Amino acid sequence: MNPVRVIEAKRDGRELDPEDIRAFLLGFLEGTVEEPQVAAFLMAVYYHGMTPAELGALVEVMLHSGAVLELDHLPAARIDKHSTGGVGDKVSLPLAPLVAEAGIYVPMMSGRGLGHTGGTLDKLEAIPGFRTDLALPRFMEVLEAERMAMIGQTAEIAPLDRRLYALRSVTGTVPSIPLIAASIMSKKLAEGLTGLVLDVKTGSGAFLADLDASRELARTMVALGRERGLPVVARLTAMDRPLGQAVGNALEVAESLACLRGEGPDDLRTVVLALAGEMLAMGGAAPDADVGAEQAGALLDSGLPLERFRRMVEAQGGDAAVVDDPGRLPKAPVVREFLAPRRGRVAAVLPRPIGVGVVEMGGGRVRLADTIDPSVGVDALVAPGTPVDAGDLLARVHARTESDARRMLAVLEAAVLLDDGDPQRPLPLLGERISAG
Amino acid sequence: MNPVRVIEAKRDGRELDPEDIRAFLLGFLEGTVEEPQVAAFLMAVYYHGMTPAELGALVEVMLHSGAVLELDHLPAARIDKHSTGGVGDKVSLPLAPLVAEAGIYVPMMSGRGLGHTGGTLDKLEAIPGFRTDLALPRFMEVLEAERMAMIGQTAEIAPLDRRLYALRSVTGTVPSIPLIAASIMSKKLAEGLTGLVLDVKTGSGAFLADLDASRELARTMVALGRERGLPVVARLTAMDRPLGQAVGNALEVAESLACLRGEGPDDLRTVVLALAGEMLAMGGAAPDADVGAEQAGALLDSGLPLERFRRMVEAQGGDAAVVDDPGRLPKAPVVREFLAPRRGRVAAVLPRPIGVGVVEMGGGRVRLADTIDPSVGVDALVAPGTPVDAGDLLARVHARTESDARRMLAVLEAAVLLDDGDPQRPLPLLGERISAG
Repeated sequence: MNPVRVIEAKRDGRELDPEDIRAFLLGFLEGTVEEPQVAAFLMAVYYHGMTPAELGALVEVMLHSGAVLELDHLPAARIDKHSTGGVGDKVSLPLAPLVAEAGIYVPMMSGRGLGHTGGTLDKLEAIPGFRTDLALPRFMEVLEAERMAMIGQTAEIAPLDRRLYALRSVTGTVPSIPLIAASIMSKKLAEGLTGLVLDVKTGSGAFLADLDASRELARTMVALGRERGLPVVARLTAMDRPLGQAVGNALEVAESLACLRGEGPDDLRTVVLALAGEMLAMGGAAPDADVGAEQAGALLDSGLPLERFRRMVEAQGGDAAVVDDPGRLPKAPVVREFLAPRRGRVAAVLPRPIGVGVVEMGGGRVRLADTIDPSVGVDALVAPGTPVDAGDLLARVHARTESDARRMLAVLEAAVLLDDGDPQRPLPLLGERISAG
Repeated sequence: MNPVRVIEAKRDGRELDPEDIRAFLLGFLEGTVEEPQVAAFLMAVYYHGMTPAELGALVEVMLHSGAVLELDHLPAARIDKHSTGGVGDKVSLPLAPLVAEAGIYVPMMSGRGLGHTGGTLDKLEAIPGFRTDLALPRFMEVLEAERMAMIGQTAEIAPLDRRLYALRSVTGTVPSIPLIAASIMSKKLAEGLTGLVLDVKTGSGAFLADLDASRELARTMVALGRERGLPVVARLTAMDRPLGQAVGNALEVAESLACLRGEGPDDLRTVVLALAGEMLAMGGAAPDADVGAEQAGALLDSGLPLERFRRMVEAQGGDAAVVDDPGRLPKAPVVREFLAPRRGRVAAVLPRPIGVGVVEMGGGRVRLADTIDPSVGVDALVAPGTPVDAGDLLARVHARTESDARRMLAVLEAAVLLDDGDPQRPLPLLGERISAG
């Protein structure tokens, strides 16, 4: 394998021999293929994509660059959920204990906020004391005791993915469907799962705003799973507006707890139950996803998943009292209301500027080294389609300073659009379902 | 300037602000923009090309990354010739002393062999003792005394070009017209010239085999010269067959000396005189290029350029006795003849396999660290169109070993095609002339 020949072939759109991809990537791991060569290769992939055979070889090397969890000793199905990321997407927090309550193991490895989107780890860490960096043996203990545990990707899992992602993030090669699919699937395939449910966000707040691209990403991941014997179901869900009414780490934990109490916004509950239904069906706990969603609704209302969440928080070092008293979560010193300037109907709530605004208030990272302020964000956010009167509350801003709050109020003015004429058509909350069948 | 934004813009085919290109490249020189980022940028340039304004900014930074020679004190025009590279292209050796003899300064900075092509420096170094690595002060002395000197690119000239070229050579981004043009022109603009003649090779032995691509490269370089006030004329010349009858360093020196004695193959003499005519016209020593070529022919036959070449060899440390006795050049131990297997007409002499064959015999470098054997190569090479009888000499192989010679004979069998039917049409030796007018 000559690395320059491999780059040239991909540059010219010729299909590579999977053996050459393998040798190229192993060369990168061993130091004989250099970072600039991989960067040029990734840019060529950005333009030409990858064939299924090429992608299979890429995922194979990524997967086996690190440890693969062995969970066969667990007495039931092991199913995880992965979201491609959105604004206000706190689905994992209520979903994991709900599905675990139904008898399925949920060994969840999540990520941090990225760009304008939040991350499950950042949200969980808003709970004082909560540890997302458990070592694998402790992770296994919690998982065995509670049928769920929620941690970050450990260093042992798919280290090649980390190295490739670091290169992609500085070389303009992040938004490539095969590279996104390989990154997600190499990590999920390492988790020792028996099934995977994907929440593929679509709309202006998603990484792939375009519906066709979202669909292609979903299909690519489902195909990669099938090839390697992992059943995968993908659901496209709406990200043309934030999910729920809260954006910001502590505020989203509070909203997740409300959901676990059977309260909270309808859209959040709907997505949680739909994905839970898929996981229950996949794990044999329900005859199909629709029945599974119904079962999950009843289970959620039983309060048992909330108890499981409480035990998980405790097992992972967090302040479990938060579960009954969300007031113990970090609170921002400045709270300001965003009121409707006039009568009308909410035409759109643009997720991306709101996500960016919360990051800039300190709720996310601009640089990797930034520390997050879990208290800041927005809640009581109005939903598109809502009729409002002048002076109605459209959102509440939680900020560290008066000037941060003012900036966020200006962001909301531009992001919450009141309708004067034609109502805009929101995406269906639950969109297409894509599976190997 | 955010380097990722710059890469993304080029990736998406948007025109960059010249200021951003400048900042991106200065960042690379200063270490704030990393090699993988430049590699990804170069691959995006490979796909999208560069606008004239972008290319101007690239050349500007490359040029000013190093020293720019100041030759204004010289009392006459300073004109160099650059070839895009071919097989058997020894034009510079007779051309430089010929043009200097006509009263024009020729501060020639040449390159080494690359891929299947030879390089002027490697040829000159076949003369025992010849130094191509003169320091700039010594270069100036020789130039002032002989109106010519022939050395390699010094480290002071366009160091950014060297760094970019090193990246391009490992990332599959060499064959990009704007990048080739920028690399050549940044170095030539640093030579303190008043004019530049480009020999743009076209045909299967050229780096850009395609006529349209050769033409575009020529136009791009002419335009870059115009922008920066340097008159540039480009001539497309044929490289669908080797130039002359010799390929290999010492053998090409011998052929060059023959040309300087008014002998040697016609095609070599024709190209030398045509380019000399352009240089004389450009430097005000002839009313136009055609008259210049005639003057150059008479001058060549006077023997004075040969004397000048002899003095230059001496001034640069070489064995000047070689000039009268080419038998002093390094000789290969094994010489074998390649004879016509049958009667016919030579339909084609493929330059690329012959160039590769000579490199593999030790006449060029496969790796940068390889040392060259100046003695090996091919001479007495037949020209396309020649009618031959069975047993006629088609070429002579000069090799280090019997097995090298056998391999080269096999290469020649495949590269020298005898016609059975339609004669193939060779490219015109002198093709289009491209200038700013």
